[in-house]
Amino acid sequence: MELGQVPLHFSRLAMFPLFDLAHYVASALGLREQRGAVEISYQSPIACWVSTMLHCFGGSVLSSLMLAESPVGFLANSTNVLLASLVWYLVFYCPQDIFYRCFSFLPLRLMVAGMKEVTRTWKITGGITHANSHYKNAWLIMVAVGWARGAGGGLISNFEQLVRGIWKPESNELLKMSYPVKVTLVGAILFTLQHTQSLPIARHNLMFFYTIFLVVTKVTMMLTPSAISPFAPFEAVLGRMLFGWQHPPSNMKSEAKLSSSSTSSSCDSPSTRENSDGAKKRQVKKVE
Amino acid sequence: MELGQVPLHFSRLAMFPLFDLAHYVASALGLREQRGAVEISYQSPIACWVSTMLHCFGGSVLSSLMLAESPVGFLANSTNVLLASLVWYLVFYCPQDIFYRCFSFLPLRLMVAGMKEVTRTWKITGGITHANSHYKNAWLIMVAVGWARGAGGGLISNFEQLVRGIWKPESNELLKMSYPVKVTLVGAILFTLQHTQSLPIARHNLMFFYTIFLVVTKVTMMLTPSAISPFAPFEAVLGRMLFGWQHPPSNMKSEAKLSSSSTSSSCDSPSTRENSDGAKKRQVKKVE
Amino acid sequence: MELGQVPLHFSRLAMFPLFDLAHYVASALGLREQRGAVEISYQSPIACWVSTMLHCFGGSVLSSLMLAESPVGFLANSTNVLLASLVWYLVFYCPQDIFYRCFSFLPLRLMVAGMKEVTRTWKITGGITHANSHYKNAWLIMVAVGWARGAGGGLISNFEQLVRGIWKPESNELLKMSYPVKVTLVGAILFTLQHTQSLPIARHNLMFFYTIFLVVTKVTMMLTPSAISPFAPFEAVLGRMLFGWQHPPSNMKSEAKLSSSSTSSSCDSPSTRENSDGAKKRQVKKVE
Repeated sequence: MELGQVPLHFSRLAMFPLFDLAHYVASALGLREQRGAVEISYQSPIACWVSTMLHCFGGSVLSSLMLAESPVGFLANSTNVLLASLVWYLVFYCPQDIFYRCFSFLPLRLMVAGMKEVTRTWKITGGITHANSHYKNAWLIMVAVGWARGAGGGLISNFEQLVRGIWKPESNELLKMSYPVKVTLVGAILFTLQHTQSLPIARHNLMFFYTIFLVVTKVTMMLTPSAISPFAPFEAVLGRMLFGWQHPPSNMKSEAKLSSSSTSSSCDSPSTRENSDGAKKRQVKKVE
Repeated sequence: MELGQVPLHFSRLAMFPLFDLAHYVASALGLREQRGAVEISYQSPIACWVSTMLHCFGGSVLSSLMLAESPVGFLANSTNVLLASLVWYLVFYCPQDIFYRCFSFLPLRLMVAGMKEVTRTWKITGGITHANSHYKNAWLIMVAVGWARGAGGGLISNFEQLVRGIWKPESNELLKMSYPVKVTLVGAILFTLQHTQSLPIARHNLMFFYTIFLVVTKVTMMLTPSAISPFAPFEAVLGRMLFGWQHPPSNMKSEAKLSSSSTSSSCDSPSTRENSDGAKKRQVKKVE
Repeated sequence: MELGQVPLHFSRLAMFPLFDLAHYVASALGLREQRGAVEISYQSPIACWVSTMLHCFGGSVLSSLMLAESPVGFLANSTNVLLASLVWYLVFYCPQDIFYRCFSFLPLRLMVAGMKEVTRTWKITGGITHANSHYKNAWLIMVAVGWARGAGGGLISNFEQLVRGIWKPESNELLKMSYPVKVTLVGAILFTLQHTQSLPIARHNLMFFYTIFLVVTKVTMMLTPSAISPFAPFEAVLGRMLFGWQHPPSNMKSEAKLSSSSTSSSCDSPSTRENSDGAKKRQVKKVE
């Protein structure tokens, strides 16, 4: 096999079963490590199962809703659902917690996380192709569906948490995007541009290099605790260019304070609340 | 008519108009007895009407959403909607409250509740048939849609309450299933098994015996105030077998503490909050 | 052109681009004037953009959901979305805030608001025609979809606020209808009656007079600060006739108090909360 053909062969990789399995394991582990998840798993195994399914198949649910298809359509693929359910059972209820302890071993954890990122590329391109079959060349819908399919679990996190009895209206993935959601949006834009032939690169090459980027940044961020998003400098420049006309530096600081106070819990003690209200009023005055 | 033919004739019973009417009456009475519902009915008759419709047609709304059909499709059946609206009007705004007082008379109440349970069987089987017409032999979707159609009002209760300005994220029917939702899930599984011919029983026989079980348990639970769910022993055994491997008592306690703090209401006053936490802890201990 | 032909010509008016543009400007200005919106626009431009799109295309999103069509279908119309995005950019990020200051000039503001009301008529009739193409002569669905298309931004306001991290479950447009939502409901009923030929008036005449009514009341309400809804007397009579049988005047007063307390913020200080709970309990006693 020549070196130049690696991307082409890579783009023909089958996701089922190994990569899908890794995605389910990484998703279930991610859920298990959220606060209160273990308790929910004993209180109500059904809520825990639904929550896990939303983590594993959230992209499918969200993109189906967007294209007016059955949001429970993923259940028709019994093999994948049973696989994900098996993973759910092993992660939460395995005797002696053997399964979870195994995958807490860093090298194994890194491998699973890396493989999960590979499935992301496939999901984005799948979503874009699917959207294109519904709406011919509607590039905004392609971006939206590709994004939703690739980052579904994150985008619906508010409603996934609601299943577990948790409601955090003050934060969502649009207000404060996490890195995976951000990188999926960038990917959805790139693959849509490639699809509409605005980007002079072959599809399999883009898939190859985007996946490499995903895996490398993911692994790096897991290994370095205080990692900075690779988008931070671009965001700063772009934000300054597009949205930052009227930001004097002093203003910026008070805004940072504001954002931190507004993402705090919804039921602060009255005193905190008044402070933040006061801050908001001042902020409005300054901006005006 | 022979005795052996009773189930067959029973399975041909028409739900419209008598049984449907009983379902609407029982649903509207159930809503009226919820805290704050009478005030809402005077503040905003429209919110009260929408809420009543969600109680009466919730199963239809939820199963339509699941199968990517119009969630307001039930409105196309004007006769049923007008019947339900008439019931809504009589339950909430009848002069001297005659209607509500009539149906507070226990024997009448029992009859209506029993008839409502009969419609449940019809809804579950209807949902399963409907799901099967969309996804051939996808048994997970059949169970999901049968369950949603039969117990829709319960499953969407969080959003039904939102219409009335009430939001209780800390509780939902997946986290803490009520008896009707639980028995509908069991029914949906049984009828799906029957549909895929894994259960050696004729459909009309299963309908007959399942309905008898529904009506008898419902009436029993209404007559005995501190009734225990007939599923409690099975659940205990099943929970112990499947999910209970690693529960040392010491672990449980710390877990109970954690769970109560995370599932408590988002805006309780501090005192209520502590009380309910205490209650939950006691509850958890009892279950153990 | 004769005077009698004015309504006919009026009914053939094209909404694109001028009236659509006015709708986007009025919607974006409305959003910008909500508390906290300016801060969100700097914290997260994407959340602000999504929120603005929900304000501009909320009717389309909601009516698509109701008829089981793609809720993101409006994105396929790239021209309109780009136009709305341009307006969003100018309203929130224009250097020196020139755009916002221009449209704060009252005569310009009135013109834009008036033109927005014109689009409402077109949306209602569009929604009714659309619903009729799905469900032949289902008048309840026609009213519902016409209403949703015309007043979508208002009806989904709870979820639009959620995008901005705000959650006010205690108030929604069904519990306490704003004037635009109310007048759209009346319009949807009138146009449905006209569609089913129960109303002896030509379609273009109804469109003409309904739009005049919309624009005149809107402009009047913007000019007179303490304006009373023109429906208030009808509502009082209708409410008394249909829903007010058992209301002694004393009861009414406590109810008014109640409603005002129930629409207060979701995170009241404990003392307010207890008072309102107490009031509710007393209320329940009185009603029973």
